[in-house]
Amino acid sequence: MKIVIDAMGGDHAPQAIVEGALEAVKSIKQLEITLVGDEEKIRPYLNESQSLTIIHTKTVITGDEEPVRAVRRKKDASLVLMAKEVKEGRADACISAGNTGALMSAGLFQVGRIKGIERPALSPTLPTIDKKGFVLLDVGANVEAKPKHLLQYAIMGSIYSEKVRGIKSPRVGLLNVGTEDGKGNELTKQAFELLRKAPIHFVGNVEARDLLDGVADVVVTDGFTGNIALKTVEGTALTMFKMIKATFMSSLKTKLAAAVVKKDMRGLKNQLDYAEYGGAGLFGLAAPVIKAHGSSNARAIFSAIKQTCHMVEHNVTATIESTIATLNEGEGE
Amino acid sequence: MKIVIDAMGGDHAPQAIVEGALEAVKSIKQLEITLVGDEEKIRPYLNESQSLTIIHTKTVITGDEEPVRAVRRKKDASLVLMAKEVKEGRADACISAGNTGALMSAGLFQVGRIKGIERPALSPTLPTIDKKGFVLLDVGANVEAKPKHLLQYAIMGSIYSEKVRGIKSPRVGLLNVGTEDGKGNELTKQAFELLRKAPIHFVGNVEARDLLDGVADVVVTDGFTGNIALKTVEGTALTMFKMIKATFMSSLKTKLAAAVVKKDMRGLKNQLDYAEYGGAGLFGLAAPVIKAHGSSNARAIFSAIKQTCHMVEHNVTATIESTIATLNEGEGE
Repeated sequence: MKIVIDAMGGDHAPQAIVEGALEAVKSIKQLEITLVGDEEKIRPYLNESQSLTIIHTKTVITGDEEPVRAVRRKKDASLVLMAKEVKEGRADACISAGNTGALMSAGLFQVGRIKGIERPALSPTLPTIDKKGFVLLDVGANVEAKPKHLLQYAIMGSIYSEKVRGIKSPRVGLLNVGTEDGKGNELTKQAFELLRKAPIHFVGNVEARDLLDGVADVVVTDGFTGNIALKTVEGTALTMFKMIKATFMSSLKTKLAAAVVKKDMRGLKNQLDYAEYGGAGLFGLAAPVIKAHGSSNARAIFSAIKQTCHMVEHNVTATIESTIATLNEGEGE
Repeated sequence: MKIVIDAMGGDHAPQAIVEGALEAVKSIKQLEITLVGDEEKIRPYLNESQSLTIIHTKTVITGDEEPVRAVRRKKDASLVLMAKEVKEGRADACISAGNTGALMSAGLFQVGRIKGIERPALSPTLPTIDKKGFVLLDVGANVEAKPKHLLQYAIMGSIYSEKVRGIKSPRVGLLNVGTEDGKGNELTKQAFELLRKAPIHFVGNVEARDLLDGVADVVVTDGFTGNIALKTVEGTALTMFKMIKATFMSSLKTKLAAAVVKKDMRGLKNQLDYAEYGGAGLFGLAAPVIKAHGSSNARAIFSAIKQTCHMVEHNVTATIESTIATLNEGEGE
């Protein structure tokens, strides 16, 4: 299996990327990794075994660049060359912790969509209190969605959860403003009817309040709403950790207590850290394209690589393609 | 000033309602409160001074009833009789901690809209890390919204924040998937242009990640997205408190530490408890109609009453009406 990684993307690139990749080739059999990026900056982190291939380029797309334009203009950027490796069949899948929009553009234009999929969906796995996590999609690949797109998201999320996350008959929920049937806006009302008839284990509407309680294994929503939900989880968790820290630092007494629970609190932070659950797949593209979190450390990159390997091994892309084909045939009849 | 309150709404009714009301008439001058509900259940919590008026009814709309139907059928329900007091001019404003949908229906049908306002908006104040809080609207009065509605929400939120919350030139943000101009779906793109020209202090797009950091004093969004954002904040905070509790209870060592910081952690919980910030106004109705949180204790009811008094005193409704009238005239020219 061959995986290509953008060595220059993310806050801790290239060090975290190289270290994560080295760890992966050491522990995953028959895995070959190609890194794309500035060889001079990558080399210092490579050990002597040189088990990674490097495609050298000095061009990088930064986080604040306008994605579509950047991908069009910077044809030799690490992220673009990475996608090209997949497009031209020299790699099975790719990973970047860089500019999300640019990765989506490069994925869409170079790797292309699965036949029958109208819109790819950005699909991270979020933490839950029982540590099982759930897949939320779409969180922003497309800001507008039609009911049919939500149906496709549901099928893709379901296949991924079954094949890669090992969940039998994953529970699929529709993010909505109430749990009762018939709730919501036009989009969710229509999507509800499609999901009810789909070849998935649909559990109905789910509320944002219950997401982290693990109310479903897959939660579908349009990219605008999904993005707001995802960032609200992140923002709330971050604010609470800041508040907890301030509470602990407020007096000598609380500081002493903090010293005692420090390790346990860090465990809590890790539990909520969705880097632990791997990167966000761009489901619906013709090969696995994974967005690792921008703040990924070596461990998060390693998680993302493992996840990508699972996607390749379990033929997630092919399964999505055949399932959608069957569904579309059924519709055509 | 006369305020009428649904004594039967919320998890701790009627006790919390009666106690909050008694506290309010004691501390707020020239305030008269009428309670609507089952006199037999209310009396035990009244002291001898009998400073509250009671309108007796045994009919109640419960939390799980279908709102519109319940309001139509149960014409003598406490919540409906409460709204009628405002409609018929015997009270200046009303408060209920009961069924949110029923309160919206009763408010809309009985109290009616401010002239020129197309859609009322449910508008809670959420906590921020600097303890100033911000108003988020709409969180679900209407699941669909047009750009013009978001403009009206912005004006209502801005007037409320200035008059009631004492914030000079409140910063108004548009909830979006990125902070750059031109981001978002059709709704937010068009709303952005309207907000830019509006007589408010518009600070542009704001991201869900930054909400609790106090990035704006007023954040506008459609009711579907706002509901998801609000419930995601609630759900994430609740899940984190559960996780923190589990962390503290995990060993004797952590239990001892917990005992030390218990009081401080409760302070943190209060800081995040938006009952502290009063209830959610149904902005756009012809008189102040306030939804207190379902889990309101006496203190939260007292906060909601204070807030309602401020709305009446500072003529929030009249100011919204005249501002919207000026705006609509400008458009007509």
